[in-house]
Amino acid sequence: MPNPTAAMLVIGDEILSGRTRDSNMHFLAGELAKQGIDLIEARVVGDDRAAIIGAVRALSAAADHVFTSGGIGPTHDDITAECIAAAFDTPIGVREDARRLLADHYAATGRELNEARLRMARIPEGATLIDNPVSIAPGFTLKNVHVMAGVPSVFQAMVASVLPTLTGGAPLLSQSLRINRGEGDIAGPLAALAADFPDLSIGSYPFQQDGAYGANIVIRGTDGARIDAAMTRLAQEFEGAL
Amino acid sequence: MPNPTAAMLVIGDEILSGRTRDSNMHFLAGELAKQGIDLIEARVVGDDRAAIIGAVRALSAAADHVFTSGGIGPTHDDITAECIAAAFDTPIGVREDARRLLADHYAATGRELNEARLRMARIPEGATLIDNPVSIAPGFTLKNVHVMAGVPSVFQAMVASVLPTLTGGAPLLSQSLRINRGEGDIAGPLAALAADFPDLSIGSYPFQQDGAYGANIVIRGTDGARIDAAMTRLAQEFEGAL
Repeated sequence: MPNPTAAMLVIGDEILSGRTRDSNMHFLAGELAKQGIDLIEARVVGDDRAAIIGAVRALSAAADHVFTSGGIGPTHDDITAECIAAAFDTPIGVREDARRLLADHYAATGRELNEARLRMARIPEGATLIDNPVSIAPGFTLKNVHVMAGVPSVFQAMVASVLPTLTGGAPLLSQSLRINRGEGDIAGPLAALAADFPDLSIGSYPFQQDGAYGANIVIRGTDGARIDAAMTRLAQEFEGAL
Repeated sequence: MPNPTAAMLVIGDEILSGRTRDSNMHFLAGELAKQGIDLIEARVVGDDRAAIIGAVRALSAAADHVFTSGGIGPTHDDITAECIAAAFDTPIGVREDARRLLADHYAATGRELNEARLRMARIPEGATLIDNPVSIAPGFTLKNVHVMAGVPSVFQAMVASVLPTLTGGAPLLSQSLRINRGEGDIAGPLAALAADFPDLSIGSYPFQQDGAYGANIVIRGTDGARIDAAMTRLAQEFEGAL
């Protein structure tokens, strides 16, 4: 059975303007690979209603799971929750359990649950809350879309609470081999290897060091014995260049 | 006149599997902002023909310029050039000027221009070559799509040769202010500010330090005097919390 698939949507003007370098995509990619869920696409859009709604609909149809990051805070540019609701033609409003989480938290820390903070309790109808142990304001899951914060520590905590609830597949395994030959010299044998092992993904990542050319070859797949077999053949073919 | 728009397409299994953390998107975002070209979307897809073709067509229609990175080397998983050609129903083959670049380079460095390396001279009909001062194998521009290498040093060199040929707009300017108040306390005044300055983009990036909450407020736009005016008002409103 093929692995379940996932897509990611990063939301925020600050990524597209170059101010902030996103780190959530790389983190999520690694976590999904461990769990055997194949990340098939990632997108970054700005704080723009039409762009968010369009991307959510496209990715929700294309993958088994969609993970979003960003745009669920208290400020005017945090429009993710209402866009997710709109993408699925679902009503959205302040939900009592989310409001209570925030009320208790702000009471305990001596801050006011004002109108802006109350926006973080707006949850689309039918959604499930995602726990936020870092700063309390919850994420949520609606249909196959998991809506999470952009702050990396909060995003990571939310991923940690969502992922165990999802059915995974066979974890992605990988082995790599450094070959001290130019990528153009490796390419022919590598293509033949890829043709003989169509169940594996074989990638070549060239480098140049002290004027010499080389490439790291990475073989990925879900069957460790097949990866061993391909790697053994590769090592024999380039015995003199390892 | 609104600024020209751009989209980016990052191509490579290694990004989606979590092996490699992309850095080209963040670099390009910063360079485009300086030149006054608005990056409106970025996507990451794997080494998959249908995914690449679909994304190229969608982004080419949505933005004035598309920049791709990855998949133009000599190995079997480097399929970007033929996918770009297919996306525009354009023939592709080894082009003499590109072949000569490679032939001279490999002759000078004592390596063989074999069949694999010759793949890097395959250029869609009607394309313009993009100079590669780092490792010679060229990128190319077809229609509004600029096709570049994934290796960051080569990608950056190619961006440096393409960007000066494009018509830019007003560069994106920004100022930021650190406010030592919780984002929920800043949100109300910030929304009012955003409503009064609809020509500016106002973002809030919360942090927590030594148990205290705060946010960095970033105001972006193309008119420095307007940014000054908005920033002055913000600083007055939060005079006691700076």
